[in-house]
Amino acid sequence: MITPPSAEARTGAYARLAALAKPTGALGHLEHLAAWVTSCQGCCPPRTLDRVRAVILAGDHGVSQPSNSGPSVSAYPREVTPAMVRAFVAGRAGANVLARQHGVSLRVLDLAVDADLSDLGEVGAYKIRRSSGAIDTADALSPDDCARSLAAGAEIAATEIAEGADLLILGDMGIGNTTPATALIAATFGVPAAEVVGRGTGVDDERLRHKTAVISAALDRVGERAADPVARLTALGSADLAAGVGFLLEAARCGVPVLLDGIISLAEAAVAEDLSPGVIAWCAAGHRSTEPAQQLALDKLGLDQSTMSPVLDLGMRLGEGTGALAALPLLRSAVLLLREMALLADLAPAH
Amino acid sequence: MITPPSAEARTGAYARLAALAKPTGALGHLEHLAAWVTSCQGCCPPRTLDRVRAVILAGDHGVSQPSNSGPSVSAYPREVTPAMVRAFVAGRAGANVLARQHGVSLRVLDLAVDADLSDLGEVGAYKIRRSSGAIDTADALSPDDCARSLAAGAEIAATEIAEGADLLILGDMGIGNTTPATALIAATFGVPAAEVVGRGTGVDDERLRHKTAVISAALDRVGERAADPVARLTALGSADLAAGVGFLLEAARCGVPVLLDGIISLAEAAVAEDLSPGVIAWCAAGHRSTEPAQQLALDKLGLDQSTMSPVLDLGMRLGEGTGALAALPLLRSAVLLLREMALLADLAPAH
Repeated sequence: MITPPSAEARTGAYARLAALAKPTGALGHLEHLAAWVTSCQGCCPPRTLDRVRAVILAGDHGVSQPSNSGPSVSAYPREVTPAMVRAFVAGRAGANVLARQHGVSLRVLDLAVDADLSDLGEVGAYKIRRSSGAIDTADALSPDDCARSLAAGAEIAATEIAEGADLLILGDMGIGNTTPATALIAATFGVPAAEVVGRGTGVDDERLRHKTAVISAALDRVGERAADPVARLTALGSADLAAGVGFLLEAARCGVPVLLDGIISLAEAAVAEDLSPGVIAWCAAGHRSTEPAQQLALDKLGLDQSTMSPVLDLGMRLGEGTGALAALPLLRSAVLLLREMALLADLAPAH
Repeated sequence: MITPPSAEARTGAYARLAALAKPTGALGHLEHLAAWVTSCQGCCPPRTLDRVRAVILAGDHGVSQPSNSGPSVSAYPREVTPAMVRAFVAGRAGANVLARQHGVSLRVLDLAVDADLSDLGEVGAYKIRRSSGAIDTADALSPDDCARSLAAGAEIAATEIAEGADLLILGDMGIGNTTPATALIAATFGVPAAEVVGRGTGVDDERLRHKTAVISAALDRVGERAADPVARLTALGSADLAAGVGFLLEAARCGVPVLLDGIISLAEAAVAEDLSPGVIAWCAAGHRSTEPAQQLALDKLGLDQSTMSPVLDLGMRLGEGTGALAALPLLRSAVLLLREMALLADLAPAH
C-alpha cells in the first residue's frame, strides 16, 4: 500500500554527493538528509524545500483531570490547552515564531480540546469530541471515534498536500499528551512504563510516580488488545493522536515526506508504521527531545534508516512541532548543498 | 582588556525566558543561546541577528608537502587550496551555498596560500607569505610574520565590524591545516598528540600514524617555548591561524559575538583565550566536528560557559565555516523566540 521512496534517486544522490568538491562524507548527516529528500522526490538533484506546511493537532486527555486515584499527570492545568490554541491563532506561540522565521504555513486544529472553541471557525472543522478518555480506567475512544479521527487526520493531510507541499510537519498541543503517547510507544515496543516514562512539561517526582502508575495501569487494563494497532489507538491513544496517525499514513500514501517532531509524532509514527509498514521511510527525525519514550521510538524505528537519527539534540521539550521547525533549515541546507556545490571536476586548476 | 558581556542583560534574558508561555526550560539549549546573545548586546530583548558576516582565512602548511621523512599529512594535494579559493570567489563552495541561504556576507582572504592569486585582487590584501613552515622541523613563522598575521587578523575583523556586524563567523581553508591546529590545541592544554589527533579530510591509518608523528615531533621540538601563546603560534601555528587569533581578539575587544566552527577556529579560540582571558565569553560553539582536538577544546573552554556546548552535532568535517553557517538559523531562532513569544501572563483565559 505504501510505495517506498525511489532507491534509484537515492543512489543518484549519493553519487552526486561523492562527486562534489569536498572530502567524501564531509557533510556528515546532511548527506543522508539530502539523499532522503532526493529519494522521496524521485529525481536528482531534488527541488528546494520551498513549500513546507505544518499542522498542530490539539486535544485534551482524561489523565490530565485530577481524580480520586491521584493528581493530574501534568504540571499544568488542562485550561492551558485552549489558551494555547488561541495563542497559535494569534500568532504568538513558539511554533508561530519559528514558522514565520522559515516561511512555513502553520495551521492549528482542535480535535478534542475540552472547551468550546467554536468562535475560532475553521480551527474546529475536524473536532471529534471534548477530551479523550482517561486511559488508566477506560478506553480513550470509542471504535467509531477512532475511525473518525483516523479519517480526519488523512483528510487534513490531503488538504495540505492539495495546497502544494514539499514537506509536512506535524505538531501537537494538549496538556497531558505525553501520557497516552508514552503508553502507545510502550505498548508498540513491549516495554514497561517505568523504562520510558518522562517528565513531560516538567513534573516533580511525585507526579512522575503517579504518571508511571497511570501508564502501567493502562497497559495492564488493555493487555493483549494492544497488539492490534487500531485497538491500541482506541484504548491507549486519543482523538488527536489517532488523527496524527491518519495524517502520517496519508502523507506516506501520497509520497510527501514528513519531518517528525517529539514524543507525540514519534508515537504516531510508531503506530502508523505498525498499521502500514513503509510509512517510516517517508519520515525523518527533526530532533531528540528529553522524553525517554521518544528516544526508544527513534532507536526502534531507526534500525534501518539513517534519517531517524535526529537532526537536532538541544534538550527542547516544548512540543507544538517546534523541534521539527527548528531543524528545517538544516534539511534545506542539505538540499541546497547537493544542488549548488561545485563538482570536484569543475574546480579550476591551481596556477 | 576584554570587557565581559553584560551579566545584567543575561539575567534579564533568563527572567524573560522564565515568563514566556512555555514550561520552564522547554527551549533547552536555545535558552542559553538567547541569553548569550542578549548579554553580548547588553540589552533585553536583543536585536535580531540580521547582519552576519563570515570570513574565510586561507593558507598552506609545510606539513602538507611530502618530504624525506614521509608523505603529506593530508589525503589531498596542496594544489586544492588555491583551487578552493577560486571556488569561493566563484560562489561555488559549500560555505557560499550556506551563506546565500542565510543572507550572510562571505569574504575569502589569502593569508598564506602557496600560489600566486594576485589576479583575485582584494583576496590577497592581507597576504603574509606563501605557505607556513613545516612545524615538525622548523618554526611555522618568524616572530615578525606572526606579529603581522595577528595584526592582519585584527584589521580584518575591524573592517567587518565597521560594515555593521551583529555576529561574525570565522572559516578556514588550507590542505593540512588540522595538523598545526591539533598541535596548538595539544600544546595549549598539555595533552600528547596521540590523544587528540584526527583524520582531517579523511586520511588512512598510515597517514594518521605519520600525522601523529609529525605533531609529536613538533611538540618535542618546541618544548617549553609553547607555554607562551605568541611563541606557541609562531612555532606551531601558521599565518592563517595567527590571523584567526587576531580576528577573535579584535571581535572580543569590540564586543561583537562570534559563532565558532570546527577545529581551526577552536585552536584559534584556545590561543586567543590564553593571550587575553575573556575572549571565549564572546564565542559560542556552532558545531561539534569529528576531530578529537576540537572536542577537547570545546570541553576545556566550555567548563564555565554553556554556549561552548555545540549547537549541531552532525558529523560535519568540511571546514570553511560551514558548521557555524549551518548552525546560524538556530541562533536566530533563539533570539526570535525570546523576542516574539507571548508571555504566560498574556495568554487569553480559557472559555
